[in-house]
Amino acid sequence: MSMKIEGIAASKGIAIARAYLLENSELMIKKRKIKDIDAEINILEKALEKTISDLEEIKNKANRELGEDKSRIFLAHQLVLKDPEFIKMVKDKIKKEHLNAEFAINEVATGFIKEFEKMKDHYFIERATDIYDVTKRVLSNILGRDYLDLRTISGEVIIVAKDLTPSETIQLDKKYIKGFVTDLGGITSHSSILARSMEIPAVVGVKDVFKKVTNNALLILDGNTGEVIVNPSTDVIREYQIKQKKYEQHKVMLRRLIDKPTITRDKHVVKLVANISSPDEVRDVIANGGEGIGLYRSEFLFLGAEKLPTEEEQFMAYKSVLQQMRGKPVVVRTLDIGGDKELSILNLPKELNPFLGFRAIRLTLDKQDIFRVHLRALLRASSYGNLKIMFPMIATLNELRQAKQILIEEKNKLVEEGGEVSDTIEVGMMIEIPSAAILADQFAKEVDFFSIGTNDLIQFMMAADRMNDKVSYLYQPYNPAILRLLDMVIKAAHKEGKWVGMCGEMAKDPIAIPLLLGMGLDDFSMSPSSILSVREQLATLSKAEAAKILDKVLSMATTDEVIKLVKDRFRILDY
Amino acid sequence: MSMKIEGIAASKGIAIARAYLLENSELMIKKRKIKDIDAEINILEKALEKTISDLEEIKNKANRELGEDKSRIFLAHQLVLKDPEFIKMVKDKIKKEHLNAEFAINEVATGFIKEFEKMKDHYFIERATDIYDVTKRVLSNILGRDYLDLRTISGEVIIVAKDLTPSETIQLDKKYIKGFVTDLGGITSHSSILARSMEIPAVVGVKDVFKKVTNNALLILDGNTGEVIVNPSTDVIREYQIKQKKYEQHKVMLRRLIDKPTITRDKHVVKLVANISSPDEVRDVIANGGEGIGLYRSEFLFLGAEKLPTEEEQFMAYKSVLQQMRGKPVVVRTLDIGGDKELSILNLPKELNPFLGFRAIRLTLDKQDIFRVHLRALLRASSYGNLKIMFPMIATLNELRQAKQILIEEKNKLVEEGGEVSDTIEVGMMIEIPSAAILADQFAKEVDFFSIGTNDLIQFMMAADRMNDKVSYLYQPYNPAILRLLDMVIKAAHKEGKWVGMCGEMAKDPIAIPLLLGMGLDDFSMSPSSILSVREQLATLSKAEAAKILDKVLSMATTDEVIKLVKDRFRILDY
Repeated sequence: MSMKIEGIAASKGIAIARAYLLENSELMIKKRKIKDIDAEINILEKALEKTISDLEEIKNKANRELGEDKSRIFLAHQLVLKDPEFIKMVKDKIKKEHLNAEFAINEVATGFIKEFEKMKDHYFIERATDIYDVTKRVLSNILGRDYLDLRTISGEVIIVAKDLTPSETIQLDKKYIKGFVTDLGGITSHSSILARSMEIPAVVGVKDVFKKVTNNALLILDGNTGEVIVNPSTDVIREYQIKQKKYEQHKVMLRRLIDKPTITRDKHVVKLVANISSPDEVRDVIANGGEGIGLYRSEFLFLGAEKLPTEEEQFMAYKSVLQQMRGKPVVVRTLDIGGDKELSILNLPKELNPFLGFRAIRLTLDKQDIFRVHLRALLRASSYGNLKIMFPMIATLNELRQAKQILIEEKNKLVEEGGEVSDTIEVGMMIEIPSAAILADQFAKEVDFFSIGTNDLIQFMMAADRMNDKVSYLYQPYNPAILRLLDMVIKAAHKEGKWVGMCGEMAKDPIAIPLLLGMGLDDFSMSPSSILSVREQLATLSKAEAAKILDKVLSMATTDEVIKLVKDRFRILDY
Repeated sequence: MSMKIEGIAASKGIAIARAYLLENSELMIKKRKIKDIDAEINILEKALEKTISDLEEIKNKANRELGEDKSRIFLAHQLVLKDPEFIKMVKDKIKKEHLNAEFAINEVATGFIKEFEKMKDHYFIERATDIYDVTKRVLSNILGRDYLDLRTISGEVIIVAKDLTPSETIQLDKKYIKGFVTDLGGITSHSSILARSMEIPAVVGVKDVFKKVTNNALLILDGNTGEVIVNPSTDVIREYQIKQKKYEQHKVMLRRLIDKPTITRDKHVVKLVANISSPDEVRDVIANGGEGIGLYRSEFLFLGAEKLPTEEEQFMAYKSVLQQMRGKPVVVRTLDIGGDKELSILNLPKELNPFLGFRAIRLTLDKQDIFRVHLRALLRASSYGNLKIMFPMIATLNELRQAKQILIEEKNKLVEEGGEVSDTIEVGMMIEIPSAAILADQFAKEVDFFSIGTNDLIQFMMAADRMNDKVSYLYQPYNPAILRLLDMVIKAAHKEGKWVGMCGEMAKDPIAIPLLLGMGLDDFSMSPSSILSVREQLATLSKAEAAKILDKVLSMATTDEVIKLVKDRFRILDY
């Protein structure tokens, strides 16, 4: 009997194939009392060695196929196994409690995972996943079982699993594995992110998937909508084959827009640029027709690092991005660390409300030694391309003036030392704090450009943490209050002859795009994979028409009214 | 030799008297191995009993002299001693480790205090203070020492102490104790709050006070500025005697304004109303000439409670306030619980950013059973006075509409049941979320009034938690962005013929007052003790003039410019 089940659309595309259930991949761990402690320690150590070398292999594969950035997770996995505290605890269990190796490591790992999961913090939840994944590998090696049979699959299937660990995901071979469906996971879990970069359609978070899908059942997986159809009728199969074909054709069509400018029906030109976190991602930007980098999150070298990156390390990363972009604009946001982006090196006290805390420009103006090295690295890189620098979390003009002053001081020092520094670096700021948005007319006089960070701005405007499920319904990009503020910011900048970009998620949102166009937004910055479809959408719009609709929207009272009007007036594409 | 030292001005007034050092109140706790466990347990239990009955006595004194609200803290102290977990840990130390009672309780208490202090959360830091205070009492009882000799003081003195516990503060006799200076403490610590309600001048947070003050030294304590002068010269003493006299005369002068209306030089009338948390405080409001209650924090019955207050309990509290106010307006804010105002009964999960979390209207719209009982209690009380109801943390029109709908439903039910409900209840909302401020023109159409909560509004506007020391400099009430927004809100309300109050700390701020007057703010709500001096300030101002200065201020760029202009143009009184 046919049945439709729903999950979270984690990676686009449509797959039609038989289900391959990984239900039994859970290992049975029995508790045994052992006598020969040395032998048991030996078993453990061999399994650890083997696992580290397995991970080395997978890491290299990931590095080749997905880039260094994505392969870093397997380095993190190796580090878990090299953590002396972790290993000591396992060995102690074997030595002192005379337990078998597999039970000992499983128990220690479970303890860690529970502790980490309690912390309700993204960082720790990911650490828990890492430990889960690594432990599973070690257990398979101890028990002499294949970790996972994915490599032996030789027909086209859709994998159905409780959760896919990153190691499992990376093994998926696109030739045979047409997609995957998991019980757990969310849109930002590691396996979802990997699925998107591997372009394998995926639906995650389908609760009780094993109760609903049997092995070998025919499945349709729609990674665009999050739907999974079990045992579809031939009519439905035909329907989806057509959808699949349309989707693939559309993809091909989008490819044609790669080298085209971004231009509306009434010949208004805007720029589509990309958000990136590391030099590895520039490849994706170019492959997707990005016209520049709208947000380079410069802190990526700092997060998770055991010591502060040197000026040279930073310089090399920034230079690499600028060189790869060959003269196209690259907007680098100075360090946004602190707050929830904890930096263990700095040993900052835990904050009650990290989103409202000591982070970004607040931290760098305080810890100027770090800031000055960072700015020097940027300034040195400036002669390799078209660099623009912007400061995050500016709330007051005093902060902006201080930051600019420090930048000038570092520039002068470098020039004095005989260094080469570009003379055309534009200096801008993020508009992500409501006070700065309200005073945009004043700020516009003292910067070259604004970049609106809608993710934070909306959170502060609505006083709602969007990571908090209980209040995430208040994250309303189309709320008239937000739209009025954005309009105000853009108009204020244009009045002073300055340009405005947007690097929050709103910039690629099909409902927001006509409104942002109406406001006159100059640069739309987004994840590389969204660029082509936004270019396509903009080609269907007229700026003059969008401005008229915008006028109506700005006098509305609720989000629902706005959505309704936009959907009535524009054809919202959603492939 | 004369010396001036500085601390935090915690309670107004000037005192001139000799120092009475409580330096040696720290008890020496020695570790001993004991043999007779039963005897030691007996010592402990007797000391606990004695302490609980001591606390009963103090609680009653506090209740008589300061009201039930302020006495509640000693109930909290009694509860610490009745906590089975705490007591069991102490007894275990005696039984299992053969330790003496005083060492055992001191060690357990120190452990708890350290844990609580780590949490960097106001609630837990106060719990730590409670445990410190209670343990000191128990130790005095075990060691057979007087807890504190304050009752034996029979000459005029200024107490100098490391910190005063609430139990110590309550024992201060105004006849002899002219003021106090402490090493620790802040403006909102319990002892500071008690000092203000007892009208004893106090300076707290004077670091290393014992190194600077010797016993019996002559002190001048200026609770208005936070200064303490040790061994002043006769000239300085004379100077302060004059200041003291002026301050006292000013106090008398202010008393004359109690029954006067609040009116500016150019005959513009505004209302000065009060913020309160419990019916006990109404007395203070009337004694200080309050023209109404601008903010009654209705959640006080809920916080710290072990079960939800019944409809009847709530009704009685609200009715009491309305009756005492005899027809003067009473604005009740519906429950602001959740977020950082944790309610243990509800067992809500800990949030990463409680200020941006599930609280106030967000919570009550979700837990309608609690909300409906609360509204019924308010509606039933409405016939006893002039009730106005307002909803906190409104971010969207949908929330406001839902809350109003529920209120109407409960009103209709009550009327159907034959209950008496006033027909003239005004319904308003807090403006404390930026999105609501920006859309004030839309909201104004659907409420009778606004009340601006500047404390939260400024935090969200600046994206800075003002409780977080590292970013509290960003809490800038005079930032032009904030002033523009407030002006926008007030103008939008007036355009729809609605009135606007303000219940944040800004409403009593001498620098803000001329600007708020210029905007046309109708009601200024503040702690009762500030009302008379604000009335005095307003009498010196002209609204027309204030509006002109406001115009200039709204086109400024920084807080510093605003402060300078206001100080140049107005005489800012600060007694």
